[in-house]
Amino acid sequence: MLKEVVEKSGDVSSKVIDFKHPKELQKLINLSLEDRGVTDDTLLQCCEQIIQYSVKTGHPHFFNQLFSGLDRYGLAGSWLTEVLNTSQYTYEVAPVFTLMEQVVLGEMCKVVGFKNGDGIFCPGGSVSNICGLNVARFKKFPAVKAQGMQALPKLCIFTSEQSHYSMKKGAALIGLGLDNVRLVPCDSRGKMDTEALGKLTEQAKAEGFTPYLVNATGGTTVLGAYDPIVEIADICEKYDMWLHVDVCWGGGALLSAKHRALLDGIERADSVAWNPHKMMGAPLQCCAFLTKETGILQQAHSANASYLFQQDKFYDVSYDTGDKSLQCGRKVDVLKVWMMWKAKGHAGFEAKINNAFAMAGYLTEKLKTLDGFRLINPEPECTNVCFWFIPPSMRGEEEDAAWWQKLGKVAPNIKEQMVMKGTMMIGYQPLGDKVNFFRVVVSNEKLTTADMDFIIDEIAGCGQNL
Amino acid sequence: MLKEVVEKSGDVSSKVIDFKHPKELQKLINLSLEDRGVTDDTLLQCCEQIIQYSVKTGHPHFFNQLFSGLDRYGLAGSWLTEVLNTSQYTYEVAPVFTLMEQVVLGEMCKVVGFKNGDGIFCPGGSVSNICGLNVARFKKFPAVKAQGMQALPKLCIFTSEQSHYSMKKGAALIGLGLDNVRLVPCDSRGKMDTEALGKLTEQAKAEGFTPYLVNATGGTTVLGAYDPIVEIADICEKYDMWLHVDVCWGGGALLSAKHRALLDGIERADSVAWNPHKMMGAPLQCCAFLTKETGILQQAHSANASYLFQQDKFYDVSYDTGDKSLQCGRKVDVLKVWMMWKAKGHAGFEAKINNAFAMAGYLTEKLKTLDGFRLINPEPECTNVCFWFIPPSMRGEEEDAAWWQKLGKVAPNIKEQMVMKGTMMIGYQPLGDKVNFFRVVVSNEKLTTADMDFIIDEIAGCGQNL
Ligand SMILES: Cc1ncc(COP(=O)(O)O)c(C=O)c1O
Ligand SMILES: Cc1ncc(COP(=O)(O)O)c(C=O)c1O
Repeated sequence: MLKEVVEKSGDVSSKVIDFKHPKELQKLINLSLEDRGVTDDTLLQCCEQIIQYSVKTGHPHFFNQLFSGLDRYGLAGSWLTEVLNTSQYTYEVAPVFTLMEQVVLGEMCKVVGFKNGDGIFCPGGSVSNICGLNVARFKKFPAVKAQGMQALPKLCIFTSEQSHYSMKKGAALIGLGLDNVRLVPCDSRGKMDTEALGKLTEQAKAEGFTPYLVNATGGTTVLGAYDPIVEIADICEKYDMWLHVDVCWGGGALLSAKHRALLDGIERADSVAWNPHKMMGAPLQCCAFLTKETGILQQAHSANASYLFQQDKFYDVSYDTGDKSLQCGRKVDVLKVWMMWKAKGHAGFEAKINNAFAMAGYLTEKLKTLDGFRLINPEPECTNVCFWFIPPSMRGEEEDAAWWQKLGKVAPNIKEQMVMKGTMMIGYQPLGDKVNFFRVVVSNEKLTTADMDFIIDEIAGCGQNL
Repeated sequence: MLKEVVEKSGDVSSKVIDFKHPKELQKLINLSLEDRGVTDDTLLQCCEQIIQYSVKTGHPHFFNQLFSGLDRYGLAGSWLTEVLNTSQYTYEVAPVFTLMEQVVLGEMCKVVGFKNGDGIFCPGGSVSNICGLNVARFKKFPAVKAQGMQALPKLCIFTSEQSHYSMKKGAALIGLGLDNVRLVPCDSRGKMDTEALGKLTEQAKAEGFTPYLVNATGGTTVLGAYDPIVEIADICEKYDMWLHVDVCWGGGALLSAKHRALLDGIERADSVAWNPHKMMGAPLQCCAFLTKETGILQQAHSANASYLFQQDKFYDVSYDTGDKSLQCGRKVDVLKVWMMWKAKGHAGFEAKINNAFAMAGYLTEKLKTLDGFRLINPEPECTNVCFWFIPPSMRGEEEDAAWWQKLGKVAPNIKEQMVMKGTMMIGYQPLGDKVNFFRVVVSNEKLTTADMDFIIDEIAGCGQNL
């Protein structure tokens, strides 16, 4: 049964989703838990239904999120992880995975350009970003660990308007507060305006704040913009701010000789968040947090629990990683990406990533030539392709407020049609003053120009009579 | 190959671990990543080595952590999770799992005794505890979200000396500071001294602090003590403090009619952290955070990202769970525990848990009758059995400082022997003024009295000539 799902996942002719509204779905699958268990046959039927009504995220026409595809090595790695079911806090219960994590994190540090470097796998890029906020704060103000925020001066951080919302979640969590996340404006392509960053830094200081961190994004969530890291690093140096670089999404470009220049300057970062589970195609969850300085993670996060990290163990306890992490038990997330990397080599990732960029480029160029499609950013840097579809009835009309308001309803309508048919899943969202537009995320390894053409035809078809 | 691992995992005659020191292991497995990938054959050989040198956590003689065993339904659920590889933030990409999470969390709330209740799965019980700290702070001081800690009075929290270290990690992270985690002393069985809690609360207030949370533990990590929740709840009510109950480890007792009284009063909690991946035997990671108040999680954690949680979607977006979470992408952790629950029913968990308590009871009673074993707590409440082994050469000697110091080296020595032979894994640790002692965690479903006898014989054998 599992095999069938795997095979089907690559099959373009199958449905991406068999959508049911919540109330309907509740009636279709008997999810209830009872005092007595059910038979294995009943359970198998449930599994079939679970599969039927779940989204096929491995399907080539699943463009809805920043992940897509089902890599067979990644899957094998994740199954083996589940069979070995262990926790990655001490060498003694995860000897192989401890060393494997060292190797993979070491490789990632090397790719980033950190000479030594350190790191840990986190349960999500958001958690990595939160680690960045916390480790930076600790580095600048070590007293925070014992005494809390109230012993510190008034702090603030900078991140671009279009950066990921986990910076805000993190700021709320660590007791910094949303108001102290200062948003730096972006240019029309979604890149951070570094002149504004300089001014905002001066301004914050003049107001009596200590700005302690700048988050630069390499591949923003919606437009796929790469912030100019070199210029940001200069500003960080000048004002003694920690440079965190969020390449959760666009970090894959580091593995491509062709696209790596997008991330020039990343070696100057103090910390980096990079999710192999997005552009590199590893199964969820697989997210690395890297620091330039060795040991700082341990210092910031350690709690020295004596029942777990005994110092009198018979092996070299410097291999125990648990005190670097915000977690205690920690799922093994490294095996699946290691399996992929071992099987395909850097070269394999590079090919995958180059293909994604090439397909996104193809789609972008094609959209430029077509009536009724309008790119949000005619020169996207990453593999996000964002555009409006303008139905025939709206073309050539005056583009006043009412027109835009109407356009904002087009993407949701087309999306609903596609989902109900099960042909394709693509996300849409507004951004600043721009009404709802589609965001096609090109990342599935299997994509060809035929799939790009399919996107266009399917959207045009659904939008024909709107 | 995977099947073999699964089958072997239950086989007592196989090794629990084939231990190699880090430097040796590095030579045995070629973990390095290269530009070109390796063949599938080479990769399979690597996998065999990975399996060989990984700890068999499903082995009945793996007593080292608070998890043990490999449930076939849980494993099937985890494999299916990996095949469907999705993220649990919106209904649209995880329709079945969204509803399934509602069902399982709803069931857990019911078991706890929350009338309505709310919740989310977290990547670890530590993260659940951090959620507790954060949600409570937000509830008492909503301004913290926007303005941070500096807008608040001086806060502190209470937790027992023997509670889990994630309370400290969390306090450091949320900007509260380790110094503001006030540790309440425990009685000789490891239970929180509630009289001391009352006094410490008064004292903190007198010092100008606002104590805002008490963490009660149901099943402490080392001794398995259950804090007296009813008395703690009374104090929380009196002083208007949030009651968080950490039953990450001992929560399984809630599913047993026989042992549920250990957690009397838990229905008065404001929030609960409960890990099905520990006593209930679900694969890692599987951790629920529950709140009595519906909606508070969303209020505390929301960031309203417009690219993900669009309000104009065509389905009922109140099903989207992403804004309740500290994460963005969130691994599906619910399917594996749902599979187990569906297959075995409450009754199945109850039988498993009753067996664990019975085996722990058997071991405890037997140890009382034996020369050379001394229980740390002759009346353990949970299934942790903690004891010293006193080698024959040390019996009957005067128990002075030197004697105790020597005893503290016994458990590490015996552990090393057992690990090198691969016969058994048991943790040890010091606690307060007590030198290193063994902690046998009884939780594997397959355990019988023969395994309990094996523990005794094996330890006595290894310790015979020390
Ligand atoms: C009492 C208690 N609470 C919380 C935790 C943390 O759980 P996790 O390892 O899932 O973070 C543990 C882990 O051992 C524990 O024993
Ligand atoms: C730029 C960026 N950073 C961070 C994240 C968060 O990653 P995760 O979903 O793994 O928490 C995302 C997720 O979409 C992202 O796009």
